[in-house]
Amino acid sequence: MMLYINAPQTTGEQVKDQQSSQELFFDKWQHLYSDRTESMRSSEVRDLLAVTERPDIIALAGGAPYTKALNLDKMSRILGEIMKDGPAPLNYGSSEGYEPLRVWLTKFMADEDVACTPDDIVITDGSQQGLELVGKIFVNPGDTIIAEAPSYVGALNAFLSYQANIIQIECDDNGLKIDKVAEELEQLKKRGITPRFIYVIPSFQNPSGGTMSLARRKKLVKLARAYNTLIVEDNAYRRLSFEEEPLASIKTLDPDNVVYLGTFSKILSPGLRVGWVVAPRPIREKLIFAKQAADLCSSSLTQRVVTAYFAETDMKTHLKKLIGIYIKRRDKMLNACEEYFPRGVKWTKPKGGFFVWVTLPEYLDTTNMLAKAVEQKVAYVPGKAFFADGTGRNCMRLNYSFMKESDIREGVRRLAEVVEQEMELYRSLKL
Amino acid sequence: MMLYINAPQTTGEQVKDQQSSQELFFDKWQHLYSDRTESMRSSEVRDLLAVTERPDIIALAGGAPYTKALNLDKMSRILGEIMKDGPAPLNYGSSEGYEPLRVWLTKFMADEDVACTPDDIVITDGSQQGLELVGKIFVNPGDTIIAEAPSYVGALNAFLSYQANIIQIECDDNGLKIDKVAEELEQLKKRGITPRFIYVIPSFQNPSGGTMSLARRKKLVKLARAYNTLIVEDNAYRRLSFEEEPLASIKTLDPDNVVYLGTFSKILSPGLRVGWVVAPRPIREKLIFAKQAADLCSSSLTQRVVTAYFAETDMKTHLKKLIGIYIKRRDKMLNACEEYFPRGVKWTKPKGGFFVWVTLPEYLDTTNMLAKAVEQKVAYVPGKAFFADGTGRNCMRLNYSFMKESDIREGVRRLAEVVEQEMELYRSLKL
Repeated sequence: MMLYINAPQTTGEQVKDQQSSQELFFDKWQHLYSDRTESMRSSEVRDLLAVTERPDIIALAGGAPYTKALNLDKMSRILGEIMKDGPAPLNYGSSEGYEPLRVWLTKFMADEDVACTPDDIVITDGSQQGLELVGKIFVNPGDTIIAEAPSYVGALNAFLSYQANIIQIECDDNGLKIDKVAEELEQLKKRGITPRFIYVIPSFQNPSGGTMSLARRKKLVKLARAYNTLIVEDNAYRRLSFEEEPLASIKTLDPDNVVYLGTFSKILSPGLRVGWVVAPRPIREKLIFAKQAADLCSSSLTQRVVTAYFAETDMKTHLKKLIGIYIKRRDKMLNACEEYFPRGVKWTKPKGGFFVWVTLPEYLDTTNMLAKAVEQKVAYVPGKAFFADGTGRNCMRLNYSFMKESDIREGVRRLAEVVEQEMELYRSLKL
Repeated sequence: MMLYINAPQTTGEQVKDQQSSQELFFDKWQHLYSDRTESMRSSEVRDLLAVTERPDIIALAGGAPYTKALNLDKMSRILGEIMKDGPAPLNYGSSEGYEPLRVWLTKFMADEDVACTPDDIVITDGSQQGLELVGKIFVNPGDTIIAEAPSYVGALNAFLSYQANIIQIECDDNGLKIDKVAEELEQLKKRGITPRFIYVIPSFQNPSGGTMSLARRKKLVKLARAYNTLIVEDNAYRRLSFEEEPLASIKTLDPDNVVYLGTFSKILSPGLRVGWVVAPRPIREKLIFAKQAADLCSSSLTQRVVTAYFAETDMKTHLKKLIGIYIKRRDKMLNACEEYFPRGVKWTKPKGGFFVWVTLPEYLDTTNMLAKAVEQKVAYVPGKAFFADGTGRNCMRLNYSFMKESDIREGVRRLAEVVEQEMELYRSLKL
């Protein structure tokens, strides 16, 4: 499902070859797979998106940061010096993670008013592994969890791979509709169901770009308490706030009932695969057992690279530079949407993060439309991916963080053209 | 459970502090955990082994290679140059793994007479993640799998975390007793049970150091076919063969019914966390879905480091150097065992890999004995860890690959002293 994040260098023809060669294999191991394997989503659009690395295609489908904005000379020097004290970066590390990094993270978390010690933190392979481990330790087959509609496809996939029953609740300009959450929790309670957790991306959400208001955050923590469940807060984008200080993290509002997921993937590098979880002590213990089974420990090398990079980087200056870059890109994309999209198309106006969420007229299907878009040399992620129940078919996620800045306008122009053709086709058929 | 592999720098006092502070936390989230969390094993000896990094303790407990044997200058240079073509090592990669590495691996596998293409390979975070993913896609709660007795603790933990019912079958000097496997399979068949797979470490096994004979390998692939199950072959140590060409991998004998797990952790570096799986195409597809949910992709940086290191390294020369080092260490350990262990103690004589497996008289319990050993400033892994059913209490695993070579003899001497005292204590109580 997630291949589109950075698809391999595959040509369209190779993709076709792979597909047909796969069809040749009869799956004689069918009787051996676990039930959960059934619930691992495969993407209908995976092969299509695999071609989006072709240089002639403008990929608005990714979710990666603009790593060229980093100080690459500094990074190269750090890499070259990382073994100056011996081969420790090549050895196993502890399952909870490299201690100096966990110590540094306590300061990073203090900047968000989250008080924690190194012993509250587990290092993970990006926050995706945090989601996987959370799924593993909390979700029995059929268990209910609550999430935003839409929500991060990688989280949905991680939870679905443990056969979660995901109830997604709609959002508006102030984020998750808390009244609807309250109703759902009450309904579930009547049926004797306690959701395992409520999963939210409160700031500059993936994919909507939206942010949950402070008032709603406060209501949410009360609700979670009242209904005896946890909050899992995914804060991948919070520090990339374009206008003002980002809102308080939910963890700050109720430290003892929130599992906080953080990552360096958006503010430094996703290729290093370093994220972290801050969790109440007994939950953290379970996460460590699950981490040990998962891969023993995260890379000693990449953990040291992150630690060394930030040891000599002023975080405020670093973020300010990134934010300046992303504001320009966001503006370029919003201006292009304004300029090119036909009437009847709506889109969000994010105040941080990487994404614009576009809603087309209900009669359009962005999954079907993708092939035509790729033909016109532009790609996006169909909205359906961000819903566990297959809704969202008339939506799509556009990314402005990763591609060449000069391509944003042209990418939206091509996409708008495809949308316009689809709308016309619909109108002509209707007549 | 796995912390002992490379325990954090924790003092005995810190450990005590952590234990008591953990006791202060009442686990109010108990009602939210999944059933599988119950089956994740925690180690009674974890805290004890956490102290083994203290410089005064000779740790025979690890499982790490001697990374000082690597060409560290070359590694530093490669790290410093890894971004010479831009920030790609910092970006997301594809879920199946870095293509040039998979291409290189086809040659590495060809050296083992395994014919495969890059499209048969998934890169994993060490082979531990391969084990986790295999557990995830094959094991329903209560499903049966077959493994060697003893078997790798990390594999047992990965499978147990998916609530596997692990049947371990005894081994002798020729490895897994195939007749017993056949009996077990027949018994299971009568009860209508098909094991999900048979997990084996055929060469220089962890923890026993033993090797399965070619005749038994051939019988095993036939049995797996006959009983409609798969073989999962863990080949972490195969290339570290001290005396002759290693035996054919099981994958070679029946390519279509074996999932092969490989890793760079033992022949290069465990801190990079790069391993791989070679699997039949439909299984590989499932593994990729599971990998996407698990962490999207392995580190782009570390995959490139491995690729670059071996691009300029002759594998034969590289392995010859490592093997020379480990032979000396193995000999030191075997000589020390001979010199110091009292009558009634038996140990294996490995012809490759990292471990000696020691069997004490049946009345001794190596889990209980560990505290005394640590007091005498030596550590090992109690045998119980390598059995899912809690047997193996009179055994222990000793490692000779990682610590200072000059410490091996002294380590075994201290350990033998503890064993002798325990034996004397038993005899005096018996009188």
